Amino acid sequence: MISKISTFWYKGERIEGPLSQHPAFQGLIETQADLYDMQCDACYLDRMTYPSPDTGELVGLSFLPPRNAEDLQKRRIMMELWANRHHGFLGRSPDYMNTAIMALFTAADILEEHNPQYADNLRRYYAYCREHDITLSHAFIQPYASKLSGQNDDVEDSIAAKVVEINDKGMVISGAFMMATQGATCEEMLVFPTPSPTIFNNVNPSAFAFAVPNDLPGMAFICRESYGASSTYDHPLSARYEEMDTLVIFDRVLVPHDRIFYYGDEAYAGRLFGESHFHTHMAHQITTRYIVKTEFLLGLLESLADEQNVGLEPQMVLNVSKIITFLETFKALRLASEQGALHDKFGYLVPATSPLLASSILFPKFYPEMVEMIQILGSSGLIMIPSEMDFDSDTGHYLDQYLKGTTSEAYDRIALFRLAWELGASSFGGRQTQFERFFFGNAHTVAYRMYNSYEDHEQLRQLINDFIAKNNSAS
Amino acid sequence: MISKISTFWYKGERIEGPLSQHPAFQGLIETQADLYDMQCDACYLDRMTYPSPDTGELVGLSFLPPRNAEDLQKRRIMMELWANRHHGFLGRSPDYMNTAIMALFTAADILEEHNPQYADNLRRYYAYCREHDITLSHAFIQPYASKLSGQNDDVEDSIAAKVVEINDKGMVISGAFMMATQGATCEEMLVFPTPSPTIFNNVNPSAFAFAVPNDLPGMAFICRESYGASSTYDHPLSARYEEMDTLVIFDRVLVPHDRIFYYGDEAYAGRLFGESHFHTHMAHQITTRYIVKTEFLLGLLESLADEQNVGLEPQMVLNVSKIITFLETFKALRLASEQGALHDKFGYLVPATSPLLASSILFPKFYPEMVEMIQILGSSGLIMIPSEMDFDSDTGHYLDQYLKGTTSEAYDRIALFRLAWELGASSFGGRQTQFERFFFGNAHTVAYRMYNSYEDHEQLRQLINDFIAKNNSAS
Amino acid sequence: MISKISTFWYKGERIEGPLSQHPAFQGLIETQADLYDMQCDACYLDRMTYPSPDTGELVGLSFLPPRNAEDLQKRRIMMELWANRHHGFLGRSPDYMNTAIMALFTAADILEEHNPQYADNLRRYYAYCREHDITLSHAFIQPYASKLSGQNDDVEDSIAAKVVEINDKGMVISGAFMMATQGATCEEMLVFPTPSPTIFNNVNPSAFAFAVPNDLPGMAFICRESYGASSTYDHPLSARYEEMDTLVIFDRVLVPHDRIFYYGDEAYAGRLFGESHFHTHMAHQITTRYIVKTEFLLGLLESLADEQNVGLEPQMVLNVSKIITFLETFKALRLASEQGALHDKFGYLVPATSPLLASSILFPKFYPEMVEMIQILGSSGLIMIPSEMDFDSDTGHYLDQYLKGTTSEAYDRIALFRLAWELGASSFGGRQTQFERFFFGNAHTVAYRMYNSYEDHEQLRQLINDFIAKNNSAS
Amino acid sequence: MISKISTFWYKGERIEGPLSQHPAFQGLIETQADLYDMQCDACYLDRMTYPSPDTGELVGLSFLPPRNAEDLQKRRIMMELWANRHHGFLGRSPDYMNTAIMALFTAADILEEHNPQYADNLRRYYAYCREHDITLSHAFIQPYASKLSGQNDDVEDSIAAKVVEINDKGMVISGAFMMATQGATCEEMLVFPTPSPTIFNNVNPSAFAFAVPNDLPGMAFICRESYGASSTYDHPLSARYEEMDTLVIFDRVLVPHDRIFYYGDEAYAGRLFGESHFHTHMAHQITTRYIVKTEFLLGLLESLADEQNVGLEPQMVLNVSKIITFLETFKALRLASEQGALHDKFGYLVPATSPLLASSILFPKFYPEMVEMIQILGSSGLIMIPSEMDFDSDTGHYLDQYLKGTTSEAYDRIALFRLAWELGASSFGGRQTQFERFFFGNAHTVAYRMYNSYEDHEQLRQLINDFIAKNNSAS
Repeated sequence: MISKISTFWYKGERIEGPLSQHPAFQGLIETQADLYDMQCDACYLDRMTYPSPDTGELVGLSFLPPRNAEDLQKRRIMMELWANRHHGFLGRSPDYMNTAIMALFTAADILEEHNPQYADNLRRYYAYCREHDITLSHAFIQPYASKLSGQNDDVEDSIAAKVVEINDKGMVISGAFMMATQGATCEEMLVFPTPSPTIFNNVNPSAFAFAVPNDLPGMAFICRESYGASSTYDHPLSARYEEMDTLVIFDRVLVPHDRIFYYGDEAYAGRLFGESHFHTHMAHQITTRYIVKTEFLLGLLESLADEQNVGLEPQMVLNVSKIITFLETFKALRLASEQGALHDKFGYLVPATSPLLASSILFPKFYPEMVEMIQILGSSGLIMIPSEMDFDSDTGHYLDQYLKGTTSEAYDRIALFRLAWELGASSFGGRQTQFERFFFGNAHTVAYRMYNSYEDHEQLRQLINDFIAKNNSAS
Repeated sequence: MISKISTFWYKGERIEGPLSQHPAFQGLIETQADLYDMQCDACYLDRMTYPSPDTGELVGLSFLPPRNAEDLQKRRIMMELWANRHHGFLGRSPDYMNTAIMALFTAADILEEHNPQYADNLRRYYAYCREHDITLSHAFIQPYASKLSGQNDDVEDSIAAKVVEINDKGMVISGAFMMATQGATCEEMLVFPTPSPTIFNNVNPSAFAFAVPNDLPGMAFICRESYGASSTYDHPLSARYEEMDTLVIFDRVLVPHDRIFYYGDEAYAGRLFGESHFHTHMAHQITTRYIVKTEFLLGLLESLADEQNVGLEPQMVLNVSKIITFLETFKALRLASEQGALHDKFGYLVPATSPLLASSILFPKFYPEMVEMIQILGSSGLIMIPSEMDFDSDTGHYLDQYLKGTTSEAYDRIALFRLAWELGASSFGGRQTQFERFFFGNAHTVAYRMYNSYEDHEQLRQLINDFIAKNNSAS
Repeated sequence: MISKISTFWYKGERIEGPLSQHPAFQGLIETQADLYDMQCDACYLDRMTYPSPDTGELVGLSFLPPRNAEDLQKRRIMMELWANRHHGFLGRSPDYMNTAIMALFTAADILEEHNPQYADNLRRYYAYCREHDITLSHAFIQPYASKLSGQNDDVEDSIAAKVVEINDKGMVISGAFMMATQGATCEEMLVFPTPSPTIFNNVNPSAFAFAVPNDLPGMAFICRESYGASSTYDHPLSARYEEMDTLVIFDRVLVPHDRIFYYGDEAYAGRLFGESHFHTHMAHQITTRYIVKTEFLLGLLESLADEQNVGLEPQMVLNVSKIITFLETFKALRLASEQGALHDKFGYLVPATSPLLASSILFPKFYPEMVEMIQILGSSGLIMIPSEMDFDSDTGHYLDQYLKGTTSEAYDRIALFRLAWELGASSFGGRQTQFERFFFGNAHTVAYRMYNSYEDHEQLRQLINDFIAKNNSAS
Repeated sequence: MISKISTFWYKGERIEGPLSQHPAFQGLIETQADLYDMQCDACYLDRMTYPSPDTGELVGLSFLPPRNAEDLQKRRIMMELWANRHHGFLGRSPDYMNTAIMALFTAADILEEHNPQYADNLRRYYAYCREHDITLSHAFIQPYASKLSGQNDDVEDSIAAKVVEINDKGMVISGAFMMATQGATCEEMLVFPTPSPTIFNNVNPSAFAFAVPNDLPGMAFICRESYGASSTYDHPLSARYEEMDTLVIFDRVLVPHDRIFYYGDEAYAGRLFGESHFHTHMAHQITTRYIVKTEFLLGLLESLADEQNVGLEPQMVLNVSKIITFLETFKALRLASEQGALHDKFGYLVPATSPLLASSILFPKFYPEMVEMIQILGSSGLIMIPSEMDFDSDTGHYLDQYLKGTTSEAYDRIALFRLAWELGASSFGGRQTQFERFFFGNAHTVAYRMYNSYEDHEQLRQLINDFIAKNNSAS
């Protein structure tokens, strides 16, 4: 029998020392630390924290459940501050998962009828995260084979994630989850898969949600190859923003009873997402990130154009204007979501959904377009680029001489091209493009979400009917 | 010597009778009349009129110079009411030119230093239009040859539009202007060309703006071929919304002194447009029209899909969601322009420019895309379509039998396809697409407008500089 | 009871006089006559005809079933001559349907086992067409409701086309067919629908193919609105190339026994198309037409650019080079089809299918792209355009003066813009775009045809398998 | 004074040992060795070699100057064999530069009038390369600053590459060149920059072409960061096909007199390229590579689709058919270039240029499109992927269990996704996309090349003129 193993694996080896000193994690951990430090910085304190309703201590604003327009505005300002610090490159900036747990918290009431204990668990867990500023990750998606397997859940060798035992200490889970981004560098993991439908059982063992520390016995995080590096000159983005993705294994992991948010009744999977307006609260954070990232790319494109003295060429003006257009669009959509916010049945103020869905449809198409603009503008300058060590070497003087720009020094000029290269042609950039493309699901998933949320289908069909009826009678 | 001729020409013949009974104009004139009637309709009166500051009589809200948020909102509601009546197909709905003259009026003060008489003329002309609900058109663009010629303005055979004489009754103008849409069906014509630059003269004869009735001696309007027809069944759009385009000739037309808004100093061409925020006020009206037209196309696409039982196919859901996305976008951009409105130096509230420019960049690309969706969905149903008279003929029973839909009668079903055909494959539809594409200038013109109006170029370049500087020092 | 009506209907009225004098057909009939005259013209005779195998008289080369490379080349030259005469605007140039009947003829042998009489009918009908240079049209597609209905073929009120009676004179057909282009102006009609599948019957009444004159009792052709006009100045394309589309009704039409090509056994529908290489022979003709039409559009785009002095601007060079690229592509694909031609089991030489399918996938995408280039280049010049009668009128001298170009006269310049307008923004142009887009089926149909005809799917999958296997073993 | 340094630099350090054991070069060198071995392999010998005209020994067919159709065919077969071995991923497969030097050789005659010695040099150098199967690279492009500087060539601090001294041993060159791909792993370097134009000098010091070994004193190759790795499981492409790009420095490098191909007269730069049909011969090789690479991507896309059971979904069929369409297109264009080949004035058979230019316009657009298809199909499977060492570790059994496919083992399935990742989202893949996009210059450069080479501009304009003239006279 294979013995149970645990925790973090990189390139086939168990990581022994602290992650903060491991080259695959060091840069990100410093970046995250910097973000947390911001909250305590006197010049940000009032814009990034609020008094805990429990203790009166200052806690992070990203945990604030919005009850009025002012709350929404506070949240937006806080999210902008953080996003401006990481320029939109962190998909798992702390406000992302903090918003997730806040959203679920707002719908805790619906669990009362399911099991009051679960409602209580969710509320207390939310408070725990807020009070201790816990770094969360999430595990929602199961591997391909598990998804197929789920449909044969009673079959012996099913590999879908499920509860395999319940005892007096909690429930025991086995299964695997794809794509826990920052799974290794977080403190806790929110696990909330889409349950396989069940027909025969009264209790669906694949229907559950819970949160646990990420170092329980039986958990293993298998990392992908790191795309980061230590030189901020050579790898200006990945040296700071490389968020490791992990495959998470649960091999008979014991989840304590007080960490279970629902279990057995698959209806609560959809209800928790829907009635907490999970996707809408998240999209408010995401759209803010989109805006900041778009600004960074705009600045980069213009800097790159200036460096090559083509900033005012017609194609550049078309491209720059297009990015400004989308920047105005994302800002306007966020504004519309805030202006159109409505109170839900629990009294929380929820941004309007449709404008945020619009931004989540537009950005996955537009981001690769901006990257392509940078690729095309960067041209062969993204292919042959020396590195920092070359400047420090005996050949450095050649680089200084030959790679300078019209007004810039070679060292600064190449730094700009390295930035464009990391975004446009490196493994880090490739992963960013892929990540943005599928952030909220594939194009069809997001389209159906918009289609289903739109309420005027029938009214507009009627408009056409009436128009035609009027014509026919006029004729 | 060729004798001077006048007024309206269609297919080489001078139109003799009233335009309202001429098949090329009848449908449009009825539509315009209906729009004017709406304002007096009790159920719209308070949303479409306001008391004249001069007389207290109710006048059209499209003339209201906005001084506060409430004014902007009133304007938007009024524009929506009209647009919903013509479904966005009228580029020259009355609010369009009313907004134009209102915008110029708000900047009349700048003419005081030029010539107080001109400032007074502009103010009084605006009031005249408002009090009499004058139907205006405009003539801004000169033919290709005139534009070239303008650069040789002192050359004898120059054909650029210019003042050829000034006498005690007024100034005498000769020249030609392209594209006075609704030139024939309007009452008055605002003429405001881009002047040819002049170096030698103190007084630039091509620098002027004025307004005159459209039937002065020496004026001739040459119409293009009409794309309209009388049957609202066969031609559901053009039977109502065919706005005739005209070439306007000024052959020594006398413009009375009190109708001149500026003359001789070309600087006022740019200043009047710029300081009146002309394009911004217009774009507020235009974006409202975009929204309504997009809704009509969405309704049409969904109706057409339903008729063919493909409404839920993946590609349809993608297309429908894309249109909803753009609909949300145009709404959000309009909202952002209103929320970001600022008072100009004259005390008027001007919508934020950038969001409106964004919509004027997006729509010319997106409109042809929607039309293509309808073409592709309509398929051969846009090629072979019978007409109303076929249904009334001895072959009608065959059509009833063979052309019915799953649940619809053939007559209604074909009406829907005729609508799709007019939009997607007829001369009327072709002109609409071309019109929307170039409504505010070609892609380059609009892009430069956005590029130049954007204020954060330098700030974002600096963002990149700082980011790189931080990297370099960290390395 | 509704009495049976017959023949040609336009705008609800039965056409009484000769079509050649009816404005909706006159231009096309003259164009077709000119094409037929070409064959007899001494300077084309040897490139457009060959001696009939039956009589030795010269007959049209488009009827020649290719047996060797020289035959294919002769066919290509003949098709180019005709296409160059109509510049690719005639979808139903005589060689189109002549190729169709030739293709079916080559597979007549397969009908021997079905019914030797049918095989004989097909061979004799082909010879009849060849000897008399019959103008054919075809009716393949049934209306939407008929297609649905077909699946309930035994239901009493089924409206799918079918044989309703067989008697000693022939078989009696009822049903309707969409989209018989040139249905009215042809002499004979080839009818060959896709049969509804049948389960219960031994004899499928909807499975048949036949050809008949287009004026039999019980036939009615219902025309769409004509997009043509008589002035070749104002309507340079439609005055010549407006091919009327018709809906064809068969109301108990008697098809003589000797005109039936198959009946009752639906397997022969697929076999006749497949084993005659129908689509491949057609695509050889169509690709030739694509080439010639692309050349026309290239010339038009460059002429329009020159007229506006923008012929060497970067965007124009990109566009022109793109068209040249596709022109080279279509030429190369046709060459590849000829070079890769193989003999079929009957001894005929069939061009390679894949290159021709490639052209039929590329052109429907590329044609609208070229049209858009012309729309964008034409700009407002496609909106306000005077007509020939305006030049002849008292306002003509203004047009001469103001609408001239840098080096061109106004009359010639406007002629060019009218041509661009007809192609890019008129009902005729809209129908052409729609026609080209769906010429060979919609995008999915054509894609599946390519997917299914491609033979290397498995080999390329294996290539990847091998590549990976080699990697895995190397690691 | 800075002392002169030499040879190969990687990450700021001079490479000391053999490149073949350096991880940044090892994989490529093995791949190249394998390609050279192929030529000697009995089963390829007759398809890859021919008897040297000088010695009768077998030499590589890529050196064969084509004199007839059979030669062209032999060349094509040889190029296919090599391309199929490296699946099109090597931009510098030996046949690439061998074709380059062969092309220049064919035009050596034009140097006779310039300097018979140069003509002789070129011929003897070609023979030297052929007899010794020399691995060549090239240096054509100078850094941005050098290009600007070149226009001030007489200015003291000019950094454009130029001859700084001529002595009895040869000419001494200083300057830098971007983008010598495989600069380090080749044996010799062909240097042939675009000269700065000169007005005042009789002898232009920047006008020259020569070839030298890549290890002369004063040469330095500065490498970019390597994107390769050693595991063919984890990095199936870069482990074999990572072609290092280098910046080449010439710091007073002595070029022996017998290695100079032209000097001083800038006219010979253009003439040598033009009269040798350099781009055309190269494009014949490149198009062959395009075909093979496209096949690899098609196989990959289909394999990836099968692995996810979506191979027959409509969008997949559209994508697969699109790739097949382009595959047929590239094949047809190559065929057309061969069929249309003409003898040049020296008696060599040159493929037709236009079809090859068409392929060099299409592929840079189409390659990124294919990569995007793979990115979208790969979805999150290109984000979280374990590596070979993970399978070998204690967590391997989890991967075996959870990452398996419907019918495939996890290890094989992940190998496929790693391949898709390397192509679609890694630094290697990013560089490939960038490389293909700019292989033959940017889009404008390639478009102008096509525009200028096309000979029918005038004829097609005349076609339109004639068409219009006919209309006007008919009206």
